[in-house]
Amino acid sequence: MKTISLEQIKAVVPSIDLISDIEEGFVAYSLGQANVPPVGELILEKGEVHIKYGCLINDEYYVIKIASGFYDNPTIGLPSGNGLMVLFRQDTGQLVCILLDEGHLTDIRTAVAGAIAAKHLAPKNVERIGVVGTGVQARLQLSYLKDVTTCRRVLAWGRSEEPLERYRRDMEANDFAIETTRDTGEILRTCNLIVTVTPATEPLLLASELQSGTHITAVGSDTPHKQELETAILREADVVVADSIAQCLLRGEIFKAMQSGDITQDELIELGDIIAGRKTGRASDSQITVADLTGVAVQDIKIAAAVYEALA
Amino acid sequence: MKTISLEQIKAVVPSIDLISDIEEGFVAYSLGQANVPPVGELILEKGEVHIKYGCLINDEYYVIKIASGFYDNPTIGLPSGNGLMVLFRQDTGQLVCILLDEGHLTDIRTAVAGAIAAKHLAPKNVERIGVVGTGVQARLQLSYLKDVTTCRRVLAWGRSEEPLERYRRDMEANDFAIETTRDTGEILRTCNLIVTVTPATEPLLLASELQSGTHITAVGSDTPHKQELETAILREADVVVADSIAQCLLRGEIFKAMQSGDITQDELIELGDIIAGRKTGRASDSQITVADLTGVAVQDIKIAAAVYEALA
Repeated sequence: MKTISLEQIKAVVPSIDLISDIEEGFVAYSLGQANVPPVGELILEKGEVHIKYGCLINDEYYVIKIASGFYDNPTIGLPSGNGLMVLFRQDTGQLVCILLDEGHLTDIRTAVAGAIAAKHLAPKNVERIGVVGTGVQARLQLSYLKDVTTCRRVLAWGRSEEPLERYRRDMEANDFAIETTRDTGEILRTCNLIVTVTPATEPLLLASELQSGTHITAVGSDTPHKQELETAILREADVVVADSIAQCLLRGEIFKAMQSGDITQDELIELGDIIAGRKTGRASDSQITVADLTGVAVQDIKIAAAVYEALA
Repeated sequence: MKTISLEQIKAVVPSIDLISDIEEGFVAYSLGQANVPPVGELILEKGEVHIKYGCLINDEYYVIKIASGFYDNPTIGLPSGNGLMVLFRQDTGQLVCILLDEGHLTDIRTAVAGAIAAKHLAPKNVERIGVVGTGVQARLQLSYLKDVTTCRRVLAWGRSEEPLERYRRDMEANDFAIETTRDTGEILRTCNLIVTVTPATEPLLLASELQSGTHITAVGSDTPHKQELETAILREADVVVADSIAQCLLRGEIFKAMQSGDITQDELIELGDIIAGRKTGRASDSQITVADLTGVAVQDIKIAAAVYEALA
């Protein structure tokens, strides 16, 4: 049994082609070649814990991922994310490896999924990237978008100036030209590739400002109570994509828009079916597309195995 | 973060008063002082994995237990059980400890629960203990029964002679007087404390042989498809006890007897309520009592914390 530290993980991740790996995961999932039980969830007084687990059928491993968010941790000098991933052999149940990632691989595979959604759904010419949020995930999303678009012009939204300024500084050091705003309407009016990465529980983006030719990847909401997009945005969209239809019926933006009656299940397309070419995503540059990413265990399965094998 | 090996676990377990610890866990559970989400389950081609997790409310830790059974493993020289337990801080989500128990603590806490059931439900004078099964759990159940009964006379049932003989030899070295049988009827006719510990999917004990003054603890069935007791045994019993009513409605002997209409939910009593003195278990030596143990996360939470603290 191998234990892999966060330091080792951070050192090896940049050398792995995670976009291809996780694309394969989404395709396997949509083809029914993955065994992914419902998400386990433990709600505590100060935080929440998600257990995502399963395997690709006939693969070598099964993976259990534990990831937590304790959102007041930063006030006592601790990161909000925590957790680990465990690989076992699928044929014998033997423990193969514990990845002490402290939530980092969940952050990475979430950002990679954002890049995959943009790769397959963004309009051909990305003029300006809109980022709604200023945290860890807002940084990682931009970093991984580098692999799928040449656009480096960014408008970032945040609730307050100080984190927005830190975000500008950090991302300019990462070769982006960053402007900032406190108005999410400006994001919708001036950006045609938008990523939302906040823990909001009330809509931040309103349908009244939505422009044709926009793609939005909604990353923040992964529970039944979080929401970043007004449900009418999903009604207005020409294409609504789920990372997992089964999961998006229970959590995230699609769950909210189903509840309000703004969309129906038969309008949903799964990301893996678009990657595989079995379904059409964006059909023209003027269409509006929305991808709702709630985070699927196949992403954890793929990244855990890739990191283990890169270090084996 | 601490990693505790199987060797360290095996060395420290005998020094811990697990009966009291796990009794406290059952009481907390039945009083609604535990946060225990539904069991996570991954069914693989060659095995099954259970994820049991949760916490006692306002306790220091939350615990996630992964335990697997790959029943063909012994044919290739590997143990069938595997897995680990992980403790995290309940207030910050920080990782505290990984217990590399390879399923051993699940075996132990299961045997301890059997002893607790016997302590509270067996007739005053145990004349002979009947054990249905000859595996690891059949051994551990007897070992922990030593703490709650002075009876050392045992009749053991197995499907074939060789494992029965090994069982006899091992348990006689452990101060028991062992006789063996291939007839489960003999167990019911001559033993008044019976423990069933097989992975059977068809009833082994039949109601027609059931005697008054018997207590049966059914340990083997922890899924919807396993079954050791004919459902009529639960109908004939004066008292039917569940380790967790919520869980026994979905798996185990009680699930089977509910399905067949032999018992109803309002007849069920929870083990923690009996331990706490809030409900009556056995009211006389002539009653028939049955305890159905499917394994509850509070057992894992209690044993993981106890082992960690004993070694801290």
